[in-house]
Formats: sequence, structure tokens, C-alpha cells
Amino acid sequence: MTSLEIFDRLESDVRGYIRSFPVELSSATGTTIVGADGTEYLDFFAGAGVLNYGHNNPVLKQALIDYISQDGITHGLDLATTAKREFMETFEKHILKPRGLEYKLQFTGPTGTNAIEASLKLARQVKGRAGVVAFTNAFHGVTVGSLASTGNKKFRDAAGFSLAHVDRMPYDGYLGDDVDTLDLFERMLNDPSSGLDTPAAVIVEAVQGEGGTNAASIPWLQRLRELTAQHDILLILDEIQAGIGRTGTFFAFEAAGIVPDIVALSKSISGYGLPMALVLLKPELDIWKPAAHSGTFRGNNLAFITGKTAIEHYWTDTRFEQQIAHKAGILQERLDKFVAEFPDYHLALRGRSMMRGILSTGDHSWATRVAQRAFEKHMVIETSGAHSEVLKFLTALTIEDSELERGLDILRDCIVETQPNGS
Amino acid sequence: MTSLEIFDRLESDVRGYIRSFPVELSSATGTTIVGADGTEYLDFFAGAGVLNYGHNNPVLKQALIDYISQDGITHGLDLATTAKREFMETFEKHILKPRGLEYKLQFTGPTGTNAIEASLKLARQVKGRAGVVAFTNAFHGVTVGSLASTGNKKFRDAAGFSLAHVDRMPYDGYLGDDVDTLDLFERMLNDPSSGLDTPAAVIVEAVQGEGGTNAASIPWLQRLRELTAQHDILLILDEIQAGIGRTGTFFAFEAAGIVPDIVALSKSISGYGLPMALVLLKPELDIWKPAAHSGTFRGNNLAFITGKTAIEHYWTDTRFEQQIAHKAGILQERLDKFVAEFPDYHLALRGRSMMRGILSTGDHSWATRVAQRAFEKHMVIETSGAHSEVLKFLTALTIEDSELERGLDILRDCIVETQPNGS
Amino acid sequence: MTSLEIFDRLESDVRGYIRSFPVELSSATGTTIVGADGTEYLDFFAGAGVLNYGHNNPVLKQALIDYISQDGITHGLDLATTAKREFMETFEKHILKPRGLEYKLQFTGPTGTNAIEASLKLARQVKGRAGVVAFTNAFHGVTVGSLASTGNKKFRDAAGFSLAHVDRMPYDGYLGDDVDTLDLFERMLNDPSSGLDTPAAVIVEAVQGEGGTNAASIPWLQRLRELTAQHDILLILDEIQAGIGRTGTFFAFEAAGIVPDIVALSKSISGYGLPMALVLLKPELDIWKPAAHSGTFRGNNLAFITGKTAIEHYWTDTRFEQQIAHKAGILQERLDKFVAEFPDYHLALRGRSMMRGILSTGDHSWATRVAQRAFEKHMVIETSGAHSEVLKFLTALTIEDSELERGLDILRDCIVETQPNGS
Amino acid sequence: MTSLEIFDRLESDVRGYIRSFPVELSSATGTTIVGADGTEYLDFFAGAGVLNYGHNNPVLKQALIDYISQDGITHGLDLATTAKREFMETFEKHILKPRGLEYKLQFTGPTGTNAIEASLKLARQVKGRAGVVAFTNAFHGVTVGSLASTGNKKFRDAAGFSLAHVDRMPYDGYLGDDVDTLDLFERMLNDPSSGLDTPAAVIVEAVQGEGGTNAASIPWLQRLRELTAQHDILLILDEIQAGIGRTGTFFAFEAAGIVPDIVALSKSISGYGLPMALVLLKPELDIWKPAAHSGTFRGNNLAFITGKTAIEHYWTDTRFEQQIAHKAGILQERLDKFVAEFPDYHLALRGRSMMRGILSTGDHSWATRVAQRAFEKHMVIETSGAHSEVLKFLTALTIEDSELERGLDILRDCIVETQPNGS
Repeated sequence: MTSLEIFDRLESDVRGYIRSFPVELSSATGTTIVGADGTEYLDFFAGAGVLNYGHNNPVLKQALIDYISQDGITHGLDLATTAKREFMETFEKHILKPRGLEYKLQFTGPTGTNAIEASLKLARQVKGRAGVVAFTNAFHGVTVGSLASTGNKKFRDAAGFSLAHVDRMPYDGYLGDDVDTLDLFERMLNDPSSGLDTPAAVIVEAVQGEGGTNAASIPWLQRLRELTAQHDILLILDEIQAGIGRTGTFFAFEAAGIVPDIVALSKSISGYGLPMALVLLKPELDIWKPAAHSGTFRGNNLAFITGKTAIEHYWTDTRFEQQIAHKAGILQERLDKFVAEFPDYHLALRGRSMMRGILSTGDHSWATRVAQRAFEKHMVIETSGAHSEVLKFLTALTIEDSELERGLDILRDCIVETQPNGS
Repeated sequence: MTSLEIFDRLESDVRGYIRSFPVELSSATGTTIVGADGTEYLDFFAGAGVLNYGHNNPVLKQALIDYISQDGITHGLDLATTAKREFMETFEKHILKPRGLEYKLQFTGPTGTNAIEASLKLARQVKGRAGVVAFTNAFHGVTVGSLASTGNKKFRDAAGFSLAHVDRMPYDGYLGDDVDTLDLFERMLNDPSSGLDTPAAVIVEAVQGEGGTNAASIPWLQRLRELTAQHDILLILDEIQAGIGRTGTFFAFEAAGIVPDIVALSKSISGYGLPMALVLLKPELDIWKPAAHSGTFRGNNLAFITGKTAIEHYWTDTRFEQQIAHKAGILQERLDKFVAEFPDYHLALRGRSMMRGILSTGDHSWATRVAQRAFEKHMVIETSGAHSEVLKFLTALTIEDSELERGLDILRDCIVETQPNGS
Repeated sequence: MTSLEIFDRLESDVRGYIRSFPVELSSATGTTIVGADGTEYLDFFAGAGVLNYGHNNPVLKQALIDYISQDGITHGLDLATTAKREFMETFEKHILKPRGLEYKLQFTGPTGTNAIEASLKLARQVKGRAGVVAFTNAFHGVTVGSLASTGNKKFRDAAGFSLAHVDRMPYDGYLGDDVDTLDLFERMLNDPSSGLDTPAAVIVEAVQGEGGTNAASIPWLQRLRELTAQHDILLILDEIQAGIGRTGTFFAFEAAGIVPDIVALSKSISGYGLPMALVLLKPELDIWKPAAHSGTFRGNNLAFITGKTAIEHYWTDTRFEQQIAHKAGILQERLDKFVAEFPDYHLALRGRSMMRGILSTGDHSWATRVAQRAFEKHMVIETSGAHSEVLKFLTALTIEDSELERGLDILRDCIVETQPNGS
Repeated sequence: MTSLEIFDRLESDVRGYIRSFPVELSSATGTTIVGADGTEYLDFFAGAGVLNYGHNNPVLKQALIDYISQDGITHGLDLATTAKREFMETFEKHILKPRGLEYKLQFTGPTGTNAIEASLKLARQVKGRAGVVAFTNAFHGVTVGSLASTGNKKFRDAAGFSLAHVDRMPYDGYLGDDVDTLDLFERMLNDPSSGLDTPAAVIVEAVQGEGGTNAASIPWLQRLRELTAQHDILLILDEIQAGIGRTGTFFAFEAAGIVPDIVALSKSISGYGLPMALVLLKPELDIWKPAAHSGTFRGNNLAFITGKTAIEHYWTDTRFEQQIAHKAGILQERLDKFVAEFPDYHLALRGRSMMRGILSTGDHSWATRVAQRAFEKHMVIETSGAHSEVLKFLTALTIEDSELERGLDILRDCIVETQPNGS
């Protein structure tokens, strides 16, 4: 193992993941990461959802090298480039049209948080209202506009001042299975003295990633869509982590049959881990003034190339969705078995499709200990949730069945070796 | 010329530069951009300062292709990667050490605005104060935290609500040459009833890019450093556009011999137009909690590769600085000639080194008309300033003398052909 | 009836109560108001809770005239005056000491909202946090600091900008009898990703006046006191309308046996309708810097005279509390009869003791129509609630039994004559 | 001297003036205050501008006692009362009409800060903008809405969070006599990238009271009126301290011949030290919704009685203005003499008419020491300014010539006995 001395000395204490996985990593393909010392790691994290097609996917890689070799435009601000045009054509043809979706595309600065900032700014301009509603355990990014809608104390405290103009509502399941948390929202919307100013928008993740791999139920999402429509409130879906096939369909909201007003995409949209973000907005909302939301790297043309190639390769027919469903089935079966096999652990499952979590109710530290154990066995897996209490399964969607099974075997060993405290 | 139909139809109205340069562009090298129809354009804009080393610089290109070909880690969150380690080592050795600068490095989300957000958040946490002072005509980005410090009405209005916690001071020269605008700032800092809450930080550009290519004088920058130090206020230099050699030295603040507390870098830091941002902070300010400012694409490893290669190639000795000085001399001479040659135009110069502007005092629209004329002659040049009244020279620093002269010849023709209104 | 022409012509459209009771009023004693034309009105509103001892109470009146006649200090800023000293001595001796309460006294500007502003400012300074939690349907005043905690849309909209730094929680009963609304608050306080920043304080009315005469249950208030104590959050009781005997004890919170950290008083504290406000704060919270919350009329010495006299006359033994209980018993009995007598009206009761409401569930306009009918019969009674749906009983506490019965007789007639819509 | 023990023990540390004048005061008439021990004090402070007609003015006193004796309505919310009607009629007839002013009247909560809150709320609603511009050294009150426009650090810090939505401009004279501080404001208003969002309103005192008795020049006020009109910005005059005759005319702005859009009055408007506040607004701005700015004590009917009587007695002809001018002449002459007599003190004058200040440039503590010395000689005089560096003359306007001379004689003695430090 090489030394991490310069990271310890020169990089700000803000560094994070390096603390959980303290090794120098050099190369990667598919679900395998190779350390500087040659050690191979099995990746069940996939760059926090950036690498839905695996590391350095060979199809995308070839397209990328070809483009660079031919001196295709690398950086083009938001100028018209051939790469951008082709991405847009492909996205329209294979993603929007088959789903009957009519959206305009806004290429924001190439980070998820920038897409959220643009979404919130647009919603506020359209409605002429400052307020936005976000949910408990939401994570929407850490720039100040997004941060106000993010729930996590660690991130919020770092702002250095009190964030404003976001009201918080309980996410689905927050008060247990018996309480429909939208009752409160509806009651407050209908009550002119509730103290809830009618918001410009509601922002929500169909499945909360950082918040604990919590999946909202289909009826809850549908009710939320109805409520917001009734009250002239825009619905923004943050699909940054849950989108691009992660939950079995291109968009996570597809399962509910709803149509959001605004959709924010990033992470796996380029397919190759290249920075890119994209906002979809209903045409009638497009009141943007030219350049009113600017940004130097809006046109990451390398990302357009790999993003286009990924769509062409994976999303022109239903085979990829079927493959995801197949792997999700394997995962579901094995997770169910864990729950059954370790009754004393009080295990519970979270999420849906290939965005899953498992936790030991009653021991917040269990998931972190399992993940550490897994890393000792050369497997990269992360946790999520307010207390890092959920072990999160976020593999490449292109993972081989055998790799998936092998990872789950390793994890079973880790679970055996990691008793919850108190059990 | 290919059709821009899909851009008009599918891309949000927020698109900007495409309106000034309405052609499809396909490839580029150095200061030449090639359209989809084969037309060649001479680039005097350099991606708004992203392409200080020119388009697709061959040295960086080779390193990039090699890395991709070998399946080097593309996306690694903020994990330790070989590419990142090597970038840090190079940056420390060739940039920080020779200048006697002691900073820690924070890799933020790969946009300039994200670096500003991190800088402001850190300053506020360190000082426990919410307020920040920024200057007239400042541009620091459009995410809400940065946007509050940006002066431009167009961007501010897009927030959809009233921005807060930033006080505005006049930039150097704002009230004419006879007024030292820091008098007001000092008076207010010393007056407990001034209504100016002592800010956590002052954020400033040594040369304002978007604001009109305004260069602060050296004494003004020095006085600002003294004032902030005396009053326990952090000084943040936004070097996103003015840094990385643009004004003749790696950092624009070097000319004043001052040491900022925090420095924000982006644009040309990767050297190849790849999204990347970096915050430099004095070690004693590093109170960040782990992962308190997160972001998916903090580790754009491709950018580390090209960024490292650029430093190794251009910044290990003083030759590049000498070359910049040489070209800046040519530019100065030609701009002075324009002023002398067209006395009726009432031309005035702005900026310094290779970050220069020229305007016709009294006709705000002149610069835009000259830029349009230039585009007709296949030259890409932009304007800046509150009224787009400044024609901005922002070529690659690697531009050939002959290209520079050729561009200036074209511009002279454009100037001849574009009389200011009223003159 | 005299003309209201000058009010219509010269007074701002912001005028309110004059619209419900459009007559010119000239004099008043006890529960009788006399119009300019000699008409007598029975007052069941008592100045929105200001006149708990009735109009121009003769005991207080004599003390007031004596003081003015002797040229006692009228206006004394916050200087030490004899009148102020005597008020403080009396308040300590007869109010604080017998209840075992240890508070310091802050005399704020003579309005309830000013007392709330001071309370919130103090809490934020003490805890170093910007956030405050307030409840649905709360009314705490309309100056911006207080207004942020007020729920009513009409008042909030008038701010002209988006209010900040207050999080909203559902008040007791807001989601029906089966839901303990503090479950949500507790869940969010215990969840670091809930998005609820730990507030400096919770502000609450033991009985909500403007919000609909809603009484929080005793267990709910007790749980709120426990929760806030556990989480290092200050508890502020807004006793402006519910205090000074209105609910049967001097403070409305006495019934729950809790001790708030801060208490805001106004309305009936002077006893004579003279402007006055008072904040009680636990001594350990008194971190105020001298004059840091100033105000010209903090020392309304005439109010000190009547306030002192009221305490001496009504609160030195338990007789007044017994009288209130007796009248509250009459009121309860008659209200219960209304409910029983008009089953088709679907009447429901609100509040407790002498702060009561009645509404027709299902017809929001019923209460307003009853009040209008009552005014035709020369009786002044108001409504409350988000939709003015609650007929509010807020008589002087000194009302004669016969007057109370007479008013209730009139109201029974009004009820008979006012069928709910839809019933 | 009686004990102040209970004040020290029971009153919050926020108490202020009692610290400068630590005696118990019992009664007062005209410019004489009588202590509990019988000591007489000469009052050159006049309740911070509340007592322009002196303490317990006998004309007003009789009217007040008569009204109370006849059981006139004491507390009437904002109902129509005879006392209110008569006040309005008198105000219209003798104040508005003769000056050609057309305003509607809004009776706010009876504190100056409440009038400012109402003014700012109205301006923001009318213009649909959140921002307001206020000046250095301004004092507009301490409730959060007003406080944001107040300059003083002591008051601002007490908010407990960062105030927002107010931009600060330098007041007349802030940068010395040679700089017209409105140059900066005009430059920023005309510059769309200045970072100054066009405000809803500018709020200004014609003479700053707390800020140091600074009088804006007539041309500066006129230019401010023109600038705001040109840019569609409302001009709010805070006449709370400077109004009601203090500067020689009823309104302080009269001297400049300008007409503000909104005027806030309080302090001396009731004439007797009774809490009252009043907002004057141009009729076309009256977009208030009924009761949208409420408040329990808006209708302080006792204040209407004394306020009406004061107008009838003092403002129905020009005699009172002539008397003020006469006394202002005496004051000016004596102050000029002080300056001439003590050249080593480097004395400078501030303010105009009967709102004057004197300071020793170079010794901030001098004024406080003179005031303390004066108190030892049984004279009450206060200081103002950011550093309490200005000795403020704020006598009753009804002061006898002999009292004025006597006070100035005492002060001359104090000045003789109080050498500035360093001189």
C-alpha cells in the first residue's frame, strides 16, 4: 500500500471517502478497482451512483478516445457543438419521445447541485414565490440554494449562517407505516393560518439516496403530484442518484406514472463519470432570460459524447431494463434471505430495485462496521442515513451476476462476523 | 452552415453564447475553432478564460489519451487516486513552494461557483459571522451562495428571491480616479453605527472579468489586504478568471505581493477545459469537518492528469511568464495605437497583461457591434461589463505572435467599420 | 348614528374592527360601551383581551386621575420612577413570589409584539442560534421578528418579503384527536438529517387566541416543556392574550405546572387598556447588554400605576380566581346547552375557562353571521380562526353574572336566527 | 436619595438610561423633574424628544383628566371613537391642509418602531421588492424589520441573527464636506451590475437623532427626493425624533420643500408622553388590506385627546414656530460662543434649530463626561452618536428663555471643568 502522506498533509480536512477507504487507487474497469499496489477491489458503491454502467465502460471509452483524438471540441461554454447537438437528438429520440415526455433541456454547470440550483431558481421565478418545500432526510447538494433544501445537519451547519426559504415536511414513512405524512402537508396547504406560505415548488427524491435509501411508495408519490397540481405548486424530481436506470426504469418517477414539472439529472447521465448535469423543464415553464443561469463548464463536450453513446447502447430497447430487473431480483432474494437468516439482528430492508439498503434496527453503528469489514475483504460498499445506519447497495447496473453473487457472499460473511450491539 | 434547429427547439431559452456565435462548432486546436461546415474561426475568447493553454493543447491531449487508454480511474469521488496524488505533489512543488505560499488544498465540485461557495462557507464558519463584503461589478458565480456576492442584475433577479448577507462596496475606480473607494470601507469599519456588520470576509477579483475587465491598482489591493487584516476579516481572492497566468503571473494577486487567506481557482486549472475547481486555504483556517462540503465530481481525475501536465510543462521555470509578458507587450502597443488612431472614438483601455478591454466611452453598444463585425470575419471575441460595453481580449496565452497580430489587424478593420454612435 | 365619513376618507384601508362595528363610540364602563348617539352596547370582546377588568374600571380610574393630578412622571423612558418601582414591588410580591417563580423583568416597548421581539432576540442571543419553532395558527404580532412566527397568511403577506428563521410545527389537535403532534417534533429533533436545525426557542400560546381559541391540552404542554428542556431549547410562553387571569389563573401556563424560560405579557397587564408590555426571563438568561433593546415608551408610567393597582385589588388573595371559575362554569354550562340544543348545527367548543369559542363545523361563515346578528342587537362579539370560523367569548372577567346571562340569551336568539349553511 | 435596589435586583440588565441618571424620579412639570427626595432637575433631554411641549403640559393635562373623568373610551382597538375622529379632523385641518399635504393616516401600534415597520411593509408591498436603502448612523428602531435599517452595532447584534434586505449608503457628510455621498448611490442605481438591487424605498431622517444629531443639508435632501423619484423608489421620512416642531417646523422635511411618499411620526405626536404612532402615506399607496397590519394598542384614545389638544393649542397659527426660532437663535448664539471661547477643545456643532449637538473632535469621551458633570449639577442632558461623542441639546420647545440660559450657564461651567483628553 502506498503512502497517503500527502493527502493527510496537503488536502483539507474536508476530505471524506478517503477516510473510509484509505488506499491509493489507480485504475478501474467494470466493478473492479485496482489499487496502486495492485490489489483488486470489488465495487458495490459505483461512485455513489455515478457509474451505473461501470468503471470505464469499454463502449463509452472508445467513443471518448476517438473524439479526443480527432480534436473534437472539449470546452465550448454553451456554444452549439456537434457533440451537444447529437446528445440532444439522442436524448429526445430515445428517452423523451418513447415515454411521451415533453421537456426542454437546460445544461447547467456540471454538478448535481447546480442542476438543483437552476431548478429552484426557475421555480421561484415562475411562481414569484420564495418558499420551497423539501422533505426530511433529503439531500439535494451543498451550494447554498440547494443546501437550504438538504436536511443533513453536517452540511447545513457548514453554511455558516441560517438557511432560509425552505419549509420541511416529513417524507413517506417518517412517522411509521400507519401515518400518511402528506396529511400534514395537505392540512397546512388548506389552512391560511398554518404558517406555511404556499411554496413555489416541492422538491423530492423518488428514492432518497443519502437519506437512508428510503423509497417513497407509489401512492404517496401520486398523491404528492395531485396535491401540488391542485395548489399550483411545481413538482421537482431530484433524480440525480435515483435516475438513469437505478430503480429499473430510466427515471425513478416512471414507476408512479407521474409527470414532474422539473427534473434534475446528473451523476450517471454522462455514463462515464464525467461531470455533467441536466435540467428538464416543461416548455411552458421556460421563462429563463438568456444566460441568466450561466456557468463555465455547462458544455462538457466529452460528457455529451459518452452520454450519447450510453443512451444509444443501453436505452434504445428494453433489454437493459430487463437486465436490471433480473439483477434486482437476485438482490431482493439474497437480502430477504439475510433478514430471515439473522432474526436476532432485527434486519430491515430499504429502497427498491438496484437502490437498496439493509439496516439493523436498534444498532446504528452496525452498517458502518459491516462496511469496514467488507473493505478488509477488498470490497467497497458505503452506508447512508442520518446515522450512517443503512448499508447501501449501489452496484453498477452492468454488474455480472457472478460478481453480484460474490459480493453478496462476502457480505454474508461480514454479517456473520458483525453482531449488532445489544443483540 | 448546419442548422441550429434542435437548439432553438429543445434547449432552454437560458442558452447564451450560442446567440452571439450562432454556428455549429466541431473541433478545435490552439486558437482555431472549426465549424461543422469546415469554416475556421480565430478564437480571441478562449472559453472565457478556460483555455489559457489553447484548445486541445497537444501535450495535455497525449497525457489524457494515455490515461484513458490505461483505464486510469475516471471517477473517484474524493478517494485517494494516483492521479490526484500526482497533481497535488506537482502543485505543491512548482506552484506553492516557489512562491513561498503555504496553503491546504480543497477540491470542490468542479465549477468556479462551487469553489466560491466553499470559500464563503469556510470563511463564515471560521469567523462565526454571516456577512461578506463584495464589490460593485463583481461576478462570483450564480449558485445562491455565490450569487449573493455577484453584482449583475440579470443573474441576481434569476434567484427568485432577495439575496442576503452580502454588503456591497465600490471597486477601485468606481467613483473616478480621484476617489479612493476604500475610504468608505475603512470609515464604515471604524464606525460602530455605520450599519456595516463586520464581515467574515471580503471577496474580490484582482481583475474583474465579467464586470468590465477592470483591474484594481496594486496600492488598492495592498490597502485592502491591510484593512482586512486589521479588522480580523478574511480576504478571499477569486482567481477563477484572472488566475493561472492570465495576468502574467500564476496568480493575479502576486503582482501586489499580498497573501490572501483563501484563493478560489477553476477555469484554466485543468488546462484542457475539463471541469475542475480548487480552493486554497491557509492551514490555520482548515476547520472543515470531514465531508461537510461534499460533491460527486470533486475528483475529476482526467482534470488532475491534464492539470498536472500543464504545470509540469509551463510552470517549472520562468519562460512561460516571459512569453506572456512578450505577448502582453504586443497587445498593449496595438491597443495604445487604437486609442491614438481613433481620437473621435474616445477609446479607453481596461485591465492588464493578457486580460484587456477596450471601450468607446459614451457608446455602450459599440463593443457589441465590433464583436459582431469580427464574427462576420470569422473571429470570436466577447464583450464584458454591465452594459457589455467593453470589448474583451482573452486569447490563449499560448497564442502565436502572428495569430495575435492577425486578430488585431482584423479588429482594426472592424473598428474602422464601426463608428461609435454620436461621434 | 354619527357619520364615519372622515374614517372612510382619511384613515388608511388597513383599518379593521371599524368594519365589523361601524359606529362611533364615545364612552364606556365595565361591559357597557356607549355610542356617540347614546346607544349602549354589551361588550363580549373586551378589547381583544385588553380589558379583563372591564372598561374604565373605577378602582384603577381613581388611581390614574390621582397620579395625573399630582403631576406624577408621565413619560420617563426607562428611568427609575416611583411608579415603576412600586409596580415592580407589587408584581414581585403578589404575582411571582406566591407562585414560586423567579424571573427578572424587562419592560419593552408597550406592545405585545415588542415583547415577543425582545423574547426572540434574547433567546437567539442566549443560544447563538437563529432558528425558532412556532406553531400552526399561532399569532405573535406583526413586526417582522414576531411576524415570522405568526401563521396567518394575511399578516405574513403584508411583510413584502419572505420571512425566515422560523420552522413551523403542528399545534395540539391539528391533525385530529388521535395524533400527538409532538411526535413529529420529537422525531425531527432526534434526527440529524431531519432538516430542522435545533432552534433557539419554541414559542407557544397555552391557548391560541387569534388562531381559533384553541387550547393545548395539559399533557401536551408538559411534554413540550420536557422536550425543549431535553434538547436545550428555550420555551417562550406568549401569554399576551391568554394571561392575566383569562384562563382562570394569572398565567395560562400555571394549569400545566410548567415553568417557561421566558414569558411575554401585554394586553391586560396595565389593567386599564393603557399600552404596556413586559417580558419575564429566568435570571440566568439575562445576558442583555445595557439598552440593547431600547424603545421610547418602555416606561409608560400611567400603565404602571393602573397595573399596580389592578394587582393589589384583584390578585392578593384567591377570590378573583374563584369568581373567574364561577363565571367560567356558567359559560361552560350554557355553551354545552347550545351544542345539545342545536344538534343540526354541528356545534363544537374550543378553549377553556373564560377564553372560549364555538363553531359550526362545516360552515366557516356561520360565526361571522352570528356576530353580525349580535351587533344588530347591540352586542359586541368577535370571531377568530383562520377562516373567522370561531365565535369567540372574551368578556371582561369582572362581568356581572346577569350581564353574562343576558349576553348568552342574546346569542341564543342569534343562533336560532342563524342557520348554518348546508344544515 | 431613595434606593434603586429593586431595579438592580429585579429589572433586566437591558435597562439603560437609569445607569446615566441613577435616581428615583417622582413628578415633573415643564422642564423640571422632581426626584423622590425632592431634588429638582433641569431637563435638557425631554424624554429623547417625546416631550416637545414639556412634562405634563397643563393645557393637555386638563383635557386628559376631563376625558378620563367622563369615562371616555380608553382602549378601543382601531374602532371609531369620538376621540379618534376629533384627532383626525384636527390633524387634517391644522397640519395637512395648511401645508398642502395630501396623506392618509395609519394608526399603528403606539411605538416609533411600529410605524417604521408599517412604512417598510407598505413600501415593499407597493413596489414588490424586498430591498430598502438606509443610511450610516441611522436609527429607526429595534424590532427586526426596523432594526435591519438601524446602523448601530449594539442594537444589530442583539437580533441574534444576520439581518437582511437593507443596503447601506453614506449619509450626508459621512466622507467629509467635499464628498457628495449621493454620487455613490446614483452611480449604483444607474449601474445594473452594481450589486444594489433597486430598493422599494429609501428611509432617512432629515436630522439623525441617535446617530449624532447630524443634519442633512437641504440640497442633499432635495437631490435624494429627485433621485428616488427618478428611479421609482419610495422616500420614507422618519420624523419620529426630528418632527413635531423640533427643527422649527412641524415636519423636519418642510425646510427642504420636499414631499415624502411616507412619513413616520411618534414620540411627541401625543404631546404628553403617551404612546402613539402615526404613518402618513400618499393616498395612491394605500394598498393595505383590512387589518393586515394589526396591533392591540393602535387606538390609544388618551393620546388622541392630548395630541388633538396640542395641535389646537400650538399649531393653529405661526406663533409657536416663531417661539421655536427665537429659542433656536439663543441656542445657536451660545453654542457659537462655546466654540469660540474654547479653541483648544476643538468643538464642533451638529444639527439645526432645537435639535443641536456639540462635540470635541478628537475626544470621544468628552461629551459623556460633560453630561455626567451636568447631572452632578442636577441637569439632565444626554449624548448621541456612535461613540456617544456628541452632547445633545433636546430641550422642551416650550422651555422658558430663562431656563434655557440657566442650563447653558451650567453647561458652560461643566465645559470649563471638563478638558478634552489630549488637549
